[in-house]
Amino acid sequence: MANSSDRPVLEELDRAECLRLIAGGVIGRVAFDDGEGPTVIPVNYAVDGDAVIFRTSVSGRLNRSLLTSVVGGEVRAAFQVDRFDEADHAGWSVLLRGGAHPLSEEEREKAAQVDAWPGGDREAWFRLSAMEVSGRRLHRP
Amino acid sequence: MANSSDRPVLEELDRAECLRLIAGGVIGRVAFDDGEGPTVIPVNYAVDGDAVIFRTSVSGRLNRSLLTSVVGGEVRAAFQVDRFDEADHAGWSVLLRGGAHPLSEEEREKAAQVDAWPGGDREAWFRLSAMEVSGRRLHRP
Repeated sequence: MANSSDRPVLEELDRAECLRLIAGGVIGRVAFDDGEGPTVIPVNYAVDGDAVIFRTSVSGRLNRSLLTSVVGGEVRAAFQVDRFDEADHAGWSVLLRGGAHPLSEEEREKAAQVDAWPGGDREAWFRLSAMEVSGRRLHRP
Repeated sequence: MANSSDRPVLEELDRAECLRLIAGGVIGRVAFDDGEGPTVIPVNYAVDGDAVIFRTSVSGRLNRSLLTSVVGGEVRAAFQVDRFDEADHAGWSVLLRGGAHPLSEEEREKAAQVDAWPGGDREAWFRLSAMEVSGRRLHRP
């Protein structure tokens, strides 16, 4: 059995490193409360400054929940991306927490463009502004 | 530009297929509310019947939040696993929603064993019993 000091360790990442790690990605996960507790849905995204832009279906649960909860402002949500190597037991995860709001037509034109993988309706666009950015890297000491 | 009918489509997966897909995995994500809104943390896990067992740090936010919210019972949480091929725009995601509770010593001995990647304290064990299992596959039509 390996010595415990050989096991991977978790290292906190700073905000700049977190934003750098997720800048190149295209798929992440939005966590929100749909009225029946916490839930998670994968979305295509793009980083836009300190925020992420994501797209979802107008008729879907994510859009309905976020729109229902927005009362002239933002609804609390989290956005998560990770990448792990299962053979190596190494990788990283990044979490953005903040408020999400639907983009108006005008905001949509100025925002980072998001390529939605699924065909059909993906015309609900949101911005999640990060009030808190955190992340951890798992690696060998 | 590709015809819109060439784009990937989302197909709902049944419960058996969802449980089959996550049975072989070792890393997923727990979504919960830590009192300041929804959040997501990656965890090592094992499937145990209709439930998942996961481990986390005793001193960490996940353990503290779940323990604080448990009032002699379970706290609502979600567990998510996905796997996507970024080149192909194909993959799947599975979501379990239900109640999480900390395992007693006795329950821990009988539960599916979970190998925690990070070294150090990972001695908070939880079971999330799935009240709802859902999943989707993204693939070419």
